[in-house]
Amino acid sequence: MSLLVVGSIAYDTIETPTTKVEDSLGGSALYFSAAASLFSPVNVVGVVGSDFDASKISFLKKRGVNLDGLYMESGKTFRWGGRYFDDMNRRETLFTYLNVFERFQPVIPEHYKKSEFVFLANIDPELQLDVLNQINNPKLIVLDTMNFWISGKRKELEEVLKVVDIIVLNDEEAKELTGEMGLIKATKAIPAMGPKSVIVKKGEHGAMLYHENEFFFVPAFPLDSVVDPTGAGDSFAGGFMGYLAKTGQIDQATLKKAMVYGSTIASFNVEDFSFNRLENLTMKEIKERVKIFKKMTFF
Amino acid sequence: MSLLVVGSIAYDTIETPTTKVEDSLGGSALYFSAAASLFSPVNVVGVVGSDFDASKISFLKKRGVNLDGLYMESGKTFRWGGRYFDDMNRRETLFTYLNVFERFQPVIPEHYKKSEFVFLANIDPELQLDVLNQINNPKLIVLDTMNFWISGKRKELEEVLKVVDIIVLNDEEAKELTGEMGLIKATKAIPAMGPKSVIVKKGEHGAMLYHENEFFFVPAFPLDSVVDPTGAGDSFAGGFMGYLAKTGQIDQATLKKAMVYGSTIASFNVEDFSFNRLENLTMKEIKERVKIFKKMTFF
Repeated sequence: MSLLVVGSIAYDTIETPTTKVEDSLGGSALYFSAAASLFSPVNVVGVVGSDFDASKISFLKKRGVNLDGLYMESGKTFRWGGRYFDDMNRRETLFTYLNVFERFQPVIPEHYKKSEFVFLANIDPELQLDVLNQINNPKLIVLDTMNFWISGKRKELEEVLKVVDIIVLNDEEAKELTGEMGLIKATKAIPAMGPKSVIVKKGEHGAMLYHENEFFFVPAFPLDSVVDPTGAGDSFAGGFMGYLAKTGQIDQATLKKAMVYGSTIASFNVEDFSFNRLENLTMKEIKERVKIFKKMTFF
Repeated sequence: MSLLVVGSIAYDTIETPTTKVEDSLGGSALYFSAAASLFSPVNVVGVVGSDFDASKISFLKKRGVNLDGLYMESGKTFRWGGRYFDDMNRRETLFTYLNVFERFQPVIPEHYKKSEFVFLANIDPELQLDVLNQINNPKLIVLDTMNFWISGKRKELEEVLKVVDIIVLNDEEAKELTGEMGLIKATKAIPAMGPKSVIVKKGEHGAMLYHENEFFFVPAFPLDSVVDPTGAGDSFAGGFMGYLAKTGQIDQATLKKAMVYGSTIASFNVEDFSFNRLENLTMKEIKERVKIFKKMTFF
């Protein structure tokens, strides 16, 4: 089924304890697309500057990613710089230059409007609402957000949450959103705000789904070393929604499998910078890793 | 099969954000026994002072816990005081009075010496070695330790690790023991020190087993609130080893199930202070929760 993502497109400058890369292509919309397109075609909406090098995403086109909603504006593409600490679980932002992204007003192309699966990546909740107003009654809406919007645009965020099916966030964000100190209480408090289901990303501790009063847990794949955690959350969301869009189902059993596919794709993504690992990833590799997830959790 | 534990017996004074309890019975040997005895008889070795009130552990005797190795010395029982912070995941030690525990020299009663499953709770590695020298060729030796011994008695700890089958520790301890920054690398580095298998306790994030080059993960049971985390690790170990001793098997499939039983018992333990929850816990309750673990991880 058709899958729409609205989010950022960025050039990232990333420092890890061992390496520095400059102007590495990233952003939520592209990480999501690189992941989801392993399973399903994707319709992208985003904005880039006139400095954008489209050749870097030609592999996405080949995988069925529709870029008709990728608008080029005069000015520079969004740039983000971050540094990861020794354990790779924490990072600090070094700079954020919104550039053309500052004036981003998503316009959904006519032929995208019937997309049945919609991912609202982590952008201003006002824009997220605006996107939903442009599209026809989708089957599933998934929303990502962050502390910046939870504290800075709570009213708008609460508004959009009312019509969202699944929210994806990390543990700190779940606690801040609900005011609950404990993660389980926080997670259980979210459905009263709108989303029927909650996905909490816990980094190296995996992810959990709260759906119809039941929890489901998937660990993070045990990697000896993480090269670059950037995009882990968005590639998780891409794997998760790509799998759902491929099957067309959103029942409990399919959601659980989608959680595992999301974790699998995220685990490949962090093995290299940018989309270097996702670009050439094969379905055989994905299935092998899903099998290991099975062995790692089955008793 | 027969199961031996050597560890501490303590009166704990515990402050949580909402409650303070004084002289609440605890200690690694008793938390372990309260958990393991739900599955299998247990032989306990430990020391108490003349102020010890044995009536509080009469339920253990009824569950087949042999207390012949519980020595009473003149003086006071070990006392520990700790305070948990708001999120219940971190604590600070307020006081430690070793009392009679300071001179603890474990003597293994003759009829304990053929115990096939041995748990060396978190005590001085010199004493752990001394215990092993007193017993006959057990089938499985599991050892718990902590940062205090890793930094303070590394040589002795390395000595005892050479003959241990499974080590149980938390993520920080695994990193300190191996000098590796990442948990996965740290865990994989441990078998070269002796233990064939490694169990890492991750608190609210569950636990993981590394055995024969494979990982197994079990989440923590999602509780709305934790009343008292004290004894979570030891009751996990008790559930884990009690289940193994009951089945008599130590193959991969049984170890995985034992991990789930350990997590299940630990999750009940933290629902109340001391052994209040474990004292009256039924096999029906345990099996119901194990079933939920299955649903929470099966895909």
